Amino acid sequence: MDLQVIGKLAKEASYELAVTDSNKKNEALETIALALEANQAEIIEANKLDIQAGIESGLTDALLDRLLLDESRLGAIIGDLRSVVSLADPVGQEFDGKLLENGLKLCKRRVPVGVIGVIYEARPNVTIDIAALCLKTGNASILRGGKETIHSNLVLVKIIQDALEASGLPKTAVQYIENTDRALVGQLLKMDQYVDMIIPRGNSGLQQFCKENSTIPVIIGGIGICHLYAEKTADFDKAIAIIENAKVQRPSVCNALDTLLVDESIAPEFLEKLAEHLQPLGVTLVAEPKAKAILGDKAQAAEPGDFSREWLSLNLGVKVVQDLHEALGHIREHSSEHSDGILTNDFSIANKFINAVNSAAVYVNASTRFTDGSQFGLGAEVAVSTQKLHARGPMGLQELTTYKWVGIGDNLIRS
Amino acid sequence: MDLQVIGKLAKEASYELAVTDSNKKNEALETIALALEANQAEIIEANKLDIQAGIESGLTDALLDRLLLDESRLGAIIGDLRSVVSLADPVGQEFDGKLLENGLKLCKRRVPVGVIGVIYEARPNVTIDIAALCLKTGNASILRGGKETIHSNLVLVKIIQDALEASGLPKTAVQYIENTDRALVGQLLKMDQYVDMIIPRGNSGLQQFCKENSTIPVIIGGIGICHLYAEKTADFDKAIAIIENAKVQRPSVCNALDTLLVDESIAPEFLEKLAEHLQPLGVTLVAEPKAKAILGDKAQAAEPGDFSREWLSLNLGVKVVQDLHEALGHIREHSSEHSDGILTNDFSIANKFINAVNSAAVYVNASTRFTDGSQFGLGAEVAVSTQKLHARGPMGLQELTTYKWVGIGDNLIRS
Repeated sequence: MDLQVIGKLAKEASYELAVTDSNKKNEALETIALALEANQAEIIEANKLDIQAGIESGLTDALLDRLLLDESRLGAIIGDLRSVVSLADPVGQEFDGKLLENGLKLCKRRVPVGVIGVIYEARPNVTIDIAALCLKTGNASILRGGKETIHSNLVLVKIIQDALEASGLPKTAVQYIENTDRALVGQLLKMDQYVDMIIPRGNSGLQQFCKENSTIPVIIGGIGICHLYAEKTADFDKAIAIIENAKVQRPSVCNALDTLLVDESIAPEFLEKLAEHLQPLGVTLVAEPKAKAILGDKAQAAEPGDFSREWLSLNLGVKVVQDLHEALGHIREHSSEHSDGILTNDFSIANKFINAVNSAAVYVNASTRFTDGSQFGLGAEVAVSTQKLHARGPMGLQELTTYKWVGIGDNLIRS
Repeated sequence: MDLQVIGKLAKEASYELAVTDSNKKNEALETIALALEANQAEIIEANKLDIQAGIESGLTDALLDRLLLDESRLGAIIGDLRSVVSLADPVGQEFDGKLLENGLKLCKRRVPVGVIGVIYEARPNVTIDIAALCLKTGNASILRGGKETIHSNLVLVKIIQDALEASGLPKTAVQYIENTDRALVGQLLKMDQYVDMIIPRGNSGLQQFCKENSTIPVIIGGIGICHLYAEKTADFDKAIAIIENAKVQRPSVCNALDTLLVDESIAPEFLEKLAEHLQPLGVTLVAEPKAKAILGDKAQAAEPGDFSREWLSLNLGVKVVQDLHEALGHIREHSSEHSDGILTNDFSIANKFINAVNSAAVYVNASTRFTDGSQFGLGAEVAVSTQKLHARGPMGLQELTTYKWVGIGDNLIRS
């Protein structure tokens, strides 16, 4: 189908969704959940085609694993969908209400953004996930998944659309770009007359492409070059436990630790202890010269660019700094403004760090791993924004809404 | 000076501004106010050069008037600057604070956006205005005014920079792009490593250019194709008073009325009365066929595109609609999502209108002219956003900030 037609239909569906009440949206979500259960066999069959094609085209085992939908994974996805049903609907909330001197009764009311375009890669669970979060918040969605999951996604979207229709909502509330030609992404990014927000869920290449080519506001995020700064008053054992958690618990995600900065006055003792603790866990320390001088064979030498990388592995950059000032300078230069923290017992230094570091999430004596929608109590997560506007950090349902001003007068003119 | 250097210096200044307290920022603003007073003669001399150049290049009287800075206008600008001093500083406000189940003490804290690029046209007052609002909110600014005001702006910016230095703040907190080559705007729009937000204050051509060429988030706004819908239960006299206010009070601004929609059941009587009332005020009714049939010689026939124009004049588009449904359809197709309202005594219809119209400001029985920072009690206005993300409608100081999540733990790891 023509992309312009998809956009127009999505816009029209968004008008209807915007005035659909929470009960009806929840009923539609439950209908989708039931339909996914009823069509489990068909979904798994389609997924086998993707897996087969993936094997033939030589995808890595890791990628094939991301593609895979089996009974248990599908069950988990349906469980997530039902938990979206149980969340509060932010649409319709009113805030900042006031009766103005001029007589106008004014407030802001949360409303859907409208039409959201989502560009993502191999995981088929994203299809259900995003469609559900958009629907819950009254947004129409246009989905563009990777070509590796095309069979799975087409079946999933058909099930969603049939369920929408059965629930009395427009099936065009969730649409999928079936044509896997990459040029269509470029076209989608220019459809600002129909699409209100673009969420690229993918690597930095995709994000950069969207930033450069989109005339629609883009949510940049999901890439974390995260720092912890072990200040000289830090409790060694507790600091090492946090560093371990931040680095080792799930190294492949964006809130995992990438770089440790250590005050030079504690560096010799602290780094020895750290290396001893982390090496058995499989962590490779990647050290700049001062840290390398302390660690010797326990670290490999950092190469140019290593401190500007999101490792997504058990590598950990290590750098010795003179003081808070140098730590701040390093973070400003290298952080992706996702999650950065300080480990300290000095209240004043902690405050200075919080004030000066301008990342989406700034921590004191806590793991960077907390930057997550469910950890933050948002109930769901659409993306983790690392940009400044609209939303920062984990984006939940509320961040899929905007507001409008509602002004009510008793036949009021401006004087 | 090289634009990249300007960007880098602005970014560095933004780090310092972000940790500058409100008192110091207010002192700097007062120092600027005093310096503007002390250098009044020099400013007016420079402005005369702009006026002279404007006359030579054949600018219209209206444009020359916008350029003009005399003692009285400068006094008003300085007055506005001092009123910015008296406003509350949003930076540092904490909200949505909670102690999470996992033990993390979490809140959002308002912080400056960082570096704001502002592209504007002839009015030299914008230079002071924007510099002051950015400074108040801890943002560095990069200003790009029109070439018509270059002499005035260079003097104003030098006065601001000297005052900043005298106040112990970096003079690079406010910078001006002196080179009037248009290519530099295109370059500025790509400097996403330094600039966090672009505000184009100008016509739709400038806004479109920014939307198409910027890799930095752009605040689109300030263009209002505004509607009022006179529903069949509207009180005629009160409705006409609101329409007059919305159209006549200040036709050249974005919140002025552009199109009136009238229910067909009241159209004959209502439009006759309206024409009688508005014609002596100089309003020209521009009517589609049904309205024209009623108004006859009292209206001119609408041409294609007339309902998609921001008039900025005493013209008023008039269209007869069947009902709410047709009115909503027209508004969706033609509104710039700035300000749209309904005139009615039917509570249920009013609610349906509020729910269905998705403009930045939606009114019931009130003039569209209320969409304004000072009318809304924001104290100041940077722009009026008509886009969905970050901010909608009048943007005050708070809309020049973003937030960061601050998480404080007692040596907390994620389980």
